[in-house]
Amino acid sequence: MVSDDILDKPLAEIAEVLRSGGTTSEALTEYAIGRHEKYGEKLNPYLTWNPELTREAAIAADACFAGGYDLGPLQGLPISIKDLYGVEGFPTYGGSAKPMADKWEKEGPVVKRIKSQLGVITGKTHTVEFAAGGIGDNIHWGAPWNPWDAHNHRGPGGSSSGAGVSLWEGSAVAAFGTDTMGSVRIPASMTGVVGLKLTFGRWSAEGIVPLRRSQDTPGPLARSVVDAAYIFAAMDSRHDTAPLSLLENLGRAAIDEVTLGIADPCFWEDCALNISDVVERAISELKNAGAKIVDAPSSETAALLSVVMQGGMPNNELLAFLDREVPNWREQVDPGLKSRLEMGSGQKSVDYLKLERWLSELRRQSRSNFDNVDVILAPTVPISPPVLADGKPVLDPDVPHVIGARNTCPANFLGQCAISMPVGLDSDGMPVGLQLIALGGEEEKLLACAMAVEKVIGSAAQRIGSPPVVAYQVR
Amino acid sequence: MVSDDILDKPLAEIAEVLRSGGTTSEALTEYAIGRHEKYGEKLNPYLTWNPELTREAAIAADACFAGGYDLGPLQGLPISIKDLYGVEGFPTYGGSAKPMADKWEKEGPVVKRIKSQLGVITGKTHTVEFAAGGIGDNIHWGAPWNPWDAHNHRGPGGSSSGAGVSLWEGSAVAAFGTDTMGSVRIPASMTGVVGLKLTFGRWSAEGIVPLRRSQDTPGPLARSVVDAAYIFAAMDSRHDTAPLSLLENLGRAAIDEVTLGIADPCFWEDCALNISDVVERAISELKNAGAKIVDAPSSETAALLSVVMQGGMPNNELLAFLDREVPNWREQVDPGLKSRLEMGSGQKSVDYLKLERWLSELRRQSRSNFDNVDVILAPTVPISPPVLADGKPVLDPDVPHVIGARNTCPANFLGQCAISMPVGLDSDGMPVGLQLIALGGEEEKLLACAMAVEKVIGSAAQRIGSPPVVAYQVR
Repeated sequence: MVSDDILDKPLAEIAEVLRSGGTTSEALTEYAIGRHEKYGEKLNPYLTWNPELTREAAIAADACFAGGYDLGPLQGLPISIKDLYGVEGFPTYGGSAKPMADKWEKEGPVVKRIKSQLGVITGKTHTVEFAAGGIGDNIHWGAPWNPWDAHNHRGPGGSSSGAGVSLWEGSAVAAFGTDTMGSVRIPASMTGVVGLKLTFGRWSAEGIVPLRRSQDTPGPLARSVVDAAYIFAAMDSRHDTAPLSLLENLGRAAIDEVTLGIADPCFWEDCALNISDVVERAISELKNAGAKIVDAPSSETAALLSVVMQGGMPNNELLAFLDREVPNWREQVDPGLKSRLEMGSGQKSVDYLKLERWLSELRRQSRSNFDNVDVILAPTVPISPPVLADGKPVLDPDVPHVIGARNTCPANFLGQCAISMPVGLDSDGMPVGLQLIALGGEEEKLLACAMAVEKVIGSAAQRIGSPPVVAYQVR
Repeated sequence: MVSDDILDKPLAEIAEVLRSGGTTSEALTEYAIGRHEKYGEKLNPYLTWNPELTREAAIAADACFAGGYDLGPLQGLPISIKDLYGVEGFPTYGGSAKPMADKWEKEGPVVKRIKSQLGVITGKTHTVEFAAGGIGDNIHWGAPWNPWDAHNHRGPGGSSSGAGVSLWEGSAVAAFGTDTMGSVRIPASMTGVVGLKLTFGRWSAEGIVPLRRSQDTPGPLARSVVDAAYIFAAMDSRHDTAPLSLLENLGRAAIDEVTLGIADPCFWEDCALNISDVVERAISELKNAGAKIVDAPSSETAALLSVVMQGGMPNNELLAFLDREVPNWREQVDPGLKSRLEMGSGQKSVDYLKLERWLSELRRQSRSNFDNVDVILAPTVPISPPVLADGKPVLDPDVPHVIGARNTCPANFLGQCAISMPVGLDSDGMPVGLQLIALGGEEEKLLACAMAVEKVIGSAAQRIGSPPVVAYQVR
């Protein structure tokens, strides 16, 4: 067995302990499995779970250390994967009622890269059905329990609804989700962990059930910015030759060397509870620590959101995918999803093409938003994780259902990269995320800034502690 | 234990058997270790040998199969590595008397790639001291025994002197050597196996003790062309996504679709014994099978060889390397090597630069040698593997010592790629190699042609049987 204080360390330290023989992947994984056995019934992060295969994987990672194989920074680390990714041995449901066709079990580049480094896959975490939703509910499998409220069942954020929960459960030290409208950052924000959304195309989305092909991005959730940077360094092919020296370089930025932009007012309107206060307080601390803070207006984002919030961007890509790939989907899916999809189905192609053209123009113009700033700061999610009643979120009926993704989807539509990190608790005691947004392709700058921010405000657990449901203290 | 008939199959079949659970890497490796225990004393292919570590590596490869990790075509296959490559756990001597500095134990891209696929490294095979010689003798460690002569100690070819011997010994199913003047192809030819010399730069030579930086190329020796193509497909980064479909495509070429050039007369002059007859007979068979055969003169090769054979290309790069990197090397190295190096040391830099300029012009011009042919055919080595007396080769005193490399070094100087495959035995019963030479960068075409040739004349073992020293029949 492994003591809590090994598993709770930063990934880089765990990796060192594995290499020095201070513990084994098998022991880590056994601990992780034990955590799921203890908390899984309440927290429910996984749809598919195969502890026998996971144990075999951990034993293999250990055997490789013994045999002189060090295959990369992820070797031996327990990692959870969202149920949209193909992973051999774990059927893919895509959050739907039935396993999808076998081809969706085929491993794409992200999973291949994790496995090429002998990362130990713990299971497939829950997703909102076909990733179409930000709260985390699922009529087939139930929503994972947000560990920050011991008494009420609250949404863990979606669509990567099990990812953040798997981290707090302690069954994984990193989690892979996907982000098309915010599906990595929203659950990160709602469960008090860090979520990194990459620029579209930076990592291939092949081997992942698609939501919107032109925006789908795989990305990690982790327990700190440093851990997210560790995963990024391990996974990003541009840093193949020296992942750990990238990590070292990213950690060099100091807060007084960065210019942070306050996001356009459209990100701050209608934030529920005291969410904007919590974020603004964190920004004040950064200012006090020497960060240069300036306004970063974005008429492009405001224009985009005025369309999105009125339902002007129907996802007919998903509709076409389901028609093509999933037999009888209309009889099986969440009726809410079905009616949303059917509502947008009347869109004419000429209107679709005009919108796409307009979007690409917005994308181009919005690059100037970063002329004077390194990254732009905003609340990640404008609402507190909603309580679920009969498995469905209780939302303000006057607010469009996309409100959960309002602050995250601009980065997807505008081709940016972004990260969410916890900066406090709202007046319901639920985590509040600060989102840092960077120009597309500038993941390294984004992570360097986020690491500088983390040094000032503390890591997730230092800042907000650990949730009441689990006894788990990440350093 | 494993039966001979599994290990003796083509690599692709062994790989399948491993994946179907028909055998384990541990069993294969145990068998390979047993072969070395049986034949190693006589054959002496390895300088460093670490069966404990090799067993651990095999166990790790098996554990990975069990844990759902299939990391590539080399997983679980026993592979020997020339003692010029850095491999952790195996000190690098570079064929010299003492271990070199620790930095030469650092793994470069080729070894990393083998290990990233969980290839099982069996040991470091002997090399001529600092790779400077084509016969295979070594005053510090002795020459490996050429298994084709049970009674006389004959040179196994160099400088990768243990590579081909490790294949016949049965302790490895593939062997990595390096080729700067012919050091993969010469031992392949002299021991009756296949040797592939890549275009300079196709695979990085980082992490390998250098002989001539601008010509050093890592490359595999294997028991058939199909096996060499298997290794190429597994190792070459341009075929990362689908190594096995490359192999399938290469195997599609038929002999009547290729145009083979008969190499310039300078390759055929002064061939000892009946070597040119054996090669010509093979070419006749190819013609009878439908190959188009044309002459492929090369005034560039003739011009190059007239300089090389008169000692006009001293290797002052090696001299500079030894001065810089190996303390007191003059007191330790083979006196023959020392005197050869010192003989060339008076070369003026202006002459060196003129030669380099001339070479680069020759390289450019020689591209037209391939205007009308796919590949060019020549004997690989113009001499029979010489008998060693007191460890030193008995050579015709009237012939320059570089005669062994005469037919191979043009591909190095002219930036080509080439392969050697056995086509018969000379009148001393020693293997004769046919060399196929292709334009630089055209490894795929080279291998497709060689596979077409192999289909006509049979694999190494089908063509020449197995050597008298070992009971080992490769299919």
